[in-house]
Amino acid sequence: MQNEIQLMGKKALKASRDLSLLDSKTKNDILLSMADEIERQKEHIQAENNKDLIAGKGNGLSKAMLDRLELNDRRIKGMSNALCEVAALPDPIGEIIKTIMRPNGLKIDKIRVPIGVIGIIFESRPNVTADSASLCFKTSNAVILRGGKEAVHSNRAIAEALQNGGKRAGLPDNVIQLIQTTDRDAVRQLVQMDKYVNLIIPRGGESLIRAVTEMAHVPVIKHYKGICHTYVDKQADLQKALSIVVNAKCQRPGVCNAMETLLVHKDIAEKFLPQAAESLMQFGVELRGNDEARDIVKTMKKATEEDWYEEYLDLILAVRVVPDIQEAINHINTYGSQHSDAIITESAENRDKFFKEVDSATVYVNASTRFTDGGEFGMGAEIGISTDKLHARGPMGLEELTTYKYIIYGDGQIRE
Amino acid sequence: MQNEIQLMGKKALKASRDLSLLDSKTKNDILLSMADEIERQKEHIQAENNKDLIAGKGNGLSKAMLDRLELNDRRIKGMSNALCEVAALPDPIGEIIKTIMRPNGLKIDKIRVPIGVIGIIFESRPNVTADSASLCFKTSNAVILRGGKEAVHSNRAIAEALQNGGKRAGLPDNVIQLIQTTDRDAVRQLVQMDKYVNLIIPRGGESLIRAVTEMAHVPVIKHYKGICHTYVDKQADLQKALSIVVNAKCQRPGVCNAMETLLVHKDIAEKFLPQAAESLMQFGVELRGNDEARDIVKTMKKATEEDWYEEYLDLILAVRVVPDIQEAINHINTYGSQHSDAIITESAENRDKFFKEVDSATVYVNASTRFTDGGEFGMGAEIGISTDKLHARGPMGLEELTTYKYIIYGDGQIRE
Repeated sequence: MQNEIQLMGKKALKASRDLSLLDSKTKNDILLSMADEIERQKEHIQAENNKDLIAGKGNGLSKAMLDRLELNDRRIKGMSNALCEVAALPDPIGEIIKTIMRPNGLKIDKIRVPIGVIGIIFESRPNVTADSASLCFKTSNAVILRGGKEAVHSNRAIAEALQNGGKRAGLPDNVIQLIQTTDRDAVRQLVQMDKYVNLIIPRGGESLIRAVTEMAHVPVIKHYKGICHTYVDKQADLQKALSIVVNAKCQRPGVCNAMETLLVHKDIAEKFLPQAAESLMQFGVELRGNDEARDIVKTMKKATEEDWYEEYLDLILAVRVVPDIQEAINHINTYGSQHSDAIITESAENRDKFFKEVDSATVYVNASTRFTDGGEFGMGAEIGISTDKLHARGPMGLEELTTYKYIIYGDGQIRE
Repeated sequence: MQNEIQLMGKKALKASRDLSLLDSKTKNDILLSMADEIERQKEHIQAENNKDLIAGKGNGLSKAMLDRLELNDRRIKGMSNALCEVAALPDPIGEIIKTIMRPNGLKIDKIRVPIGVIGIIFESRPNVTADSASLCFKTSNAVILRGGKEAVHSNRAIAEALQNGGKRAGLPDNVIQLIQTTDRDAVRQLVQMDKYVNLIIPRGGESLIRAVTEMAHVPVIKHYKGICHTYVDKQADLQKALSIVVNAKCQRPGVCNAMETLLVHKDIAEKFLPQAAESLMQFGVELRGNDEARDIVKTMKKATEEDWYEEYLDLILAVRVVPDIQEAINHINTYGSQHSDAIITESAENRDKFFKEVDSATVYVNASTRFTDGGEFGMGAEIGISTDKLHARGPMGLEELTTYKYIIYGDGQIRE
């Protein structure tokens, strides 16, 4: 086992060096050839996926899990389209980020380069195989994928299609590798292999991410939960507030940028909360409030301390009436997950205070937190939304899968 | 113990929030007041330093170690000057890195913000206390310092001077904290406290850094060794090559950006190596070569496989004659530490190949690797030179002690 995973690491390092030689056009041709092969291998991929679905039913996977696992025609087409979209995006590699001219004549270019070898550890959805592989490849990173055991056949079929399709257009060996064994010790090996692996991105539930972080010697970028807040300020435009609050909670409650807690300034609570409650309850939202909120909307359940920490991912909303903006900020910095938080206000002063003091990856004024997304930010694609502060924060697109190096042009300079 | 370190973390997190409220002028005034207090407390600091020196002698510290430990007048003045220099540097916090305008009218500013709480773990030199604290403070980060046990009195006296001097000018509480206990378990607590600490920077030998990395749950930026190469290409200007090689090896051999291995193209080796050997030997450099090199310079010792991995930090140089540029690049990527590597060539093609394929933080053409330094790069100050690829690479100045957040200006936008 040790040897097998170490060998994959060694091969990936070699592959990452080979990758540095490919130009953008070749990389894009390879991505299009992969897209092609995914469609060509559709029947084979679905046959393998069916093995996973049958095993999943046998093992009592929930309906939601089985749904995430299934690769229907639309999803296979979606994978193939996503590969074409990644091919169409600009290539960040080689970009000059900054040029420094020194008095001694040295010219220093800070340029964008691949990270090297990236390990992706993910759970049930097998299309993550194609998505992550394509983003890593576009940025000239070698990738080692480790999917969930419930999708083992699907992941293998997809990885093979990517490798075979890519190879026809010049993909070097071992650029995309899939860990075949479902042995849990393989994960430990992978995340401790700092000689070969430069970055680990775990994509899955909190327990997976925490387990990986505790074992890892390699840097990990974490995608923890989104406990997102909307604070309706005393100086809010209540019409805007209402539509934003409903959108942030109800448009797609099961995702990480949906609102989980509504904070309302006490001076406008009596006017705003009954309207908001009515609109939210029309969508079937269950409200859980503090005492001040329940004094205004009697039908609200009582919120406990645990509710402020909760990522419901469901039609449930915690509601707190706060005495002032400072308490709203303190609440967010105490209970939030530094993901996405919004203030609704017409006051520039309160907006700036909120922007400055809320310690989150994305902070909004007068907009729905649902916009935290690589696509909505104009990144074209995303590998996830980092709740870490290093090395990438918030939506992670292609640029966030790169690092930099300095190249220095001299003409014989020596240090005095 | 657990409670004490956890409490420091909790206080540091609170302090990092307080810090976000300070403007640049206040921060600079605080730095100047710290500089002032270091000079005022000179006698007290030296008395405390003397306790460490006496204990060090008793414990048999080497002369070199005792020298690094000693705080003479010049070094105290140096600490104070460094604080003033950091005050004079531009403040990176609040800088708008990029603005994205979206078709739906959202304006997204990516702005530079502090990382939060940084833990610095360092060995003997007590002036690191002032240097790291000032750089972290300038970038509005709270810092928890853990120095070596041989400098415990010196570090405490310096930290107190910084705290007291700072406080007079408005430094919030707990922005700069020093771990007082020398219990090794405190380090483990610190680096696993991901609830409160955002980044660990260990400054010291490889064994310290490795131990920290293996224990840490918090991201670690590592400053490993510098095994720096100079490759003299077939198309080199040999005059430039000679002065660069001598400078890179001899100007200050004990530092991480000094050359450790010289690679020479076989076609110019017969001409270049005898001259280079003569010049280097005038500086007392011991040469260790491969067979091809020793055929040309008979007095060279034989290099073993271990020599290619060695960071001598001394007047010793490994020398290898290589058949072509590809072998030079392969050697560097195999044995190097991804720190600083140079090619000496007049060929643009070979330069570009070297720039592209050498996977190091800083890559030079026709200049000495000794320039890898925050000051020489125009950063004004540096906290170290990262051999990691994430989140910072190469010389780390103030900018590298920051992260970013997105602030988004809306006017009622909701997601469709």
